[in-house]
Amino acid sequence: MSDSDYMARALELAARGKGYTSPNPCVGAVVVKNGQIIGQGFHPKAGGPHAEVVAIDDAAVRNPEKLVDSTIYVTLEPCNHFGKTPPCTHKILKAGISRVVVACEDPNPNVAGGGIDFLREKGLEVVSGLMEQEALTLIEDFVWNVQNDKTPFVTLKCAATLDGYIATRTGDSQWITSRASRKFGHVLRHQNDAILIGSGTLHGDDPSLTARIDEKQALDPARIILDTRLSIQENAKVVVQESSAPTIIVTGPGCDPGKIQRFKDKGVQVLECRVVENLLDLNDLMIKLRKLSITSLLIEGGGRVAASALAAGIVNKICYFLAPKIMGGNDGIPVFNGSGPEKIKDVFELVRVTTRQFGSDTLVTGYIEPRNRPVSNGI
Amino acid sequence: MSDSDYMARALELAARGKGYTSPNPCVGAVVVKNGQIIGQGFHPKAGGPHAEVVAIDDAAVRNPEKLVDSTIYVTLEPCNHFGKTPPCTHKILKAGISRVVVACEDPNPNVAGGGIDFLREKGLEVVSGLMEQEALTLIEDFVWNVQNDKTPFVTLKCAATLDGYIATRTGDSQWITSRASRKFGHVLRHQNDAILIGSGTLHGDDPSLTARIDEKQALDPARIILDTRLSIQENAKVVVQESSAPTIIVTGPGCDPGKIQRFKDKGVQVLECRVVENLLDLNDLMIKLRKLSITSLLIEGGGRVAASALAAGIVNKICYFLAPKIMGGNDGIPVFNGSGPEKIKDVFELVRVTTRQFGSDTLVTGYIEPRNRPVSNGI
Repeated sequence: MSDSDYMARALELAARGKGYTSPNPCVGAVVVKNGQIIGQGFHPKAGGPHAEVVAIDDAAVRNPEKLVDSTIYVTLEPCNHFGKTPPCTHKILKAGISRVVVACEDPNPNVAGGGIDFLREKGLEVVSGLMEQEALTLIEDFVWNVQNDKTPFVTLKCAATLDGYIATRTGDSQWITSRASRKFGHVLRHQNDAILIGSGTLHGDDPSLTARIDEKQALDPARIILDTRLSIQENAKVVVQESSAPTIIVTGPGCDPGKIQRFKDKGVQVLECRVVENLLDLNDLMIKLRKLSITSLLIEGGGRVAASALAAGIVNKICYFLAPKIMGGNDGIPVFNGSGPEKIKDVFELVRVTTRQFGSDTLVTGYIEPRNRPVSNGI
Repeated sequence: MSDSDYMARALELAARGKGYTSPNPCVGAVVVKNGQIIGQGFHPKAGGPHAEVVAIDDAAVRNPEKLVDSTIYVTLEPCNHFGKTPPCTHKILKAGISRVVVACEDPNPNVAGGGIDFLREKGLEVVSGLMEQEALTLIEDFVWNVQNDKTPFVTLKCAATLDGYIATRTGDSQWITSRASRKFGHVLRHQNDAILIGSGTLHGDDPSLTARIDEKQALDPARIILDTRLSIQENAKVVVQESSAPTIIVTGPGCDPGKIQRFKDKGVQVLECRVVENLLDLNDLMIKLRKLSITSLLIEGGGRVAASALAAGIVNKICYFLAPKIMGGNDGIPVFNGSGPEKIKDVFELVRVTTRQFGSDTLVTGYIEPRNRPVSNGI
């Protein structure tokens, strides 16, 4: 096994924590001696032990001696500051580890490289940047948040036929995508702090917006409902269901205070937001959500919300599920409902595009570069 | 190298002939002795030598003795009938080859298995069905034509943004797809006997519809233009350009005989076709084209032709290029321009779906099963 194999293992471990660690990043670590993995672990949740601590303790339980002159592979630069726990750099040093392989430096420019420098000063060999891109992608929401504390990392999820429809002209939509795609949709919900839909989807589907994953206890995202005029039914699922996560209804000004109070009494938050040209200002909303400690947001649509989010320039990432189905006409319900550009040069271009199969569906994932994110007001 | 490795090589060789052999299938062959390839070849064009002959002669040129007790890998069952040349089975027998590995049997039910049976009777070891699916896919148009002599094998090519648009609302379309996708579009043209567009695309783009491939001399497809009222300009590129392939204008009845004659004088064929509800009957047209020895047809659109072809049930295969671009509105020019279904269960479902990257574009290829091919009248 090579350095890359061990780091790939550490990345796999890190991914197991994804969705549980917010606002922390997910991190994995593997301790190797004489070509054998002697300890491994990942950061399980915010407030829980760091990955390096889990991996070192895992090795030490069996044989503390073995740690001397071992190598630790860790997906993120070990921390070098005293927080709730002593710094991981000290733990590594004390264990007698002699070589540290790091995938990516701490994205926080104020501390980046500090842990690596400390370990080098103490005489350890440190290799940094192995599988850096994979590691940064895994914690992309965290990276965004340490470098931009104003708005959450926003993922727009779409699911459509090859020709771009989310339902037939009569509104029939079950099911366009495969079971495997829909299952992964729940993983995306689990991985985000919050999920956002418009009132059209709310009234049409009465969705629960919880994260349901067979293999593990998923964390529900906070549910954000765009509902300018507070039209939501008081017995909607997102209001009455059991969930560990809150529901937040976003309204414009001037809604019925009695109705607002009744929602508050049920534990539902009501967030008033700026309205521009009869539409909720999504840029204003992103700032408000970040202040509520929402660091990652999954937008699930429908078509008006999706188009408004793109136009408002708030979208970082697109997860676009394509079913191998063709409507074959132009009268279905389109995946984006709004106004498009005049020129091809002004379309939204995705970069760093990857594809992955879910059953017979293709998930196209890409990122919208800031230059492709016109700032305007939305919905 | 295993049997599969040699057969993969034979399939690669076969593919080199693709586009040149119509109405024959493309076939490749490899002769192997003691783990060494001693001869190889492919069927280069209709009227040219069969792949087995090329491969055996290639080995014999170096050392005829070597062929004794060798193995031949051939992508299609060797022929066992006297045609323009003696049967390949006799050539194999005479060469002293002792083992024959075949990917797929002859798809013609009247002769299927005959070559294999003959060789077995003569004492040769024959293995059949190795990489059968790959071999059948490579000659899918030939398979269709031996089993259905009424209509050509029809491939519908689409190229759109992720949200299903082929141009912006102002008609701007250059370029949605990557250079690599557009290059492969020319390979598709080369591989088909004919290409079909509607008069909308003709008037909008004045395309040449030739096949232009950097690495090799491509064969132009015959150009079929749907033009019910013979509105085409007499100086359109498809009329005046140099090309080895004919242009066929498909009209409804009652067009100006003088204009028809002027096109005929320029070497352009004018084909009158049935019209139903003001639209050319694509089912009638397919029968007429097959009678003109067109065994494979590539439909390039635009949106009305694409929708009509699907609705008419004439499409066998879809090649759908998806660019990682998003229009973000619902006012672009849609990839299918027509009426869609009421229910999801009635959408066109693709089967045997594969994906392939062309630059950052994804080509989704799939087949429309007969049950998904409603028979109706089109365009």
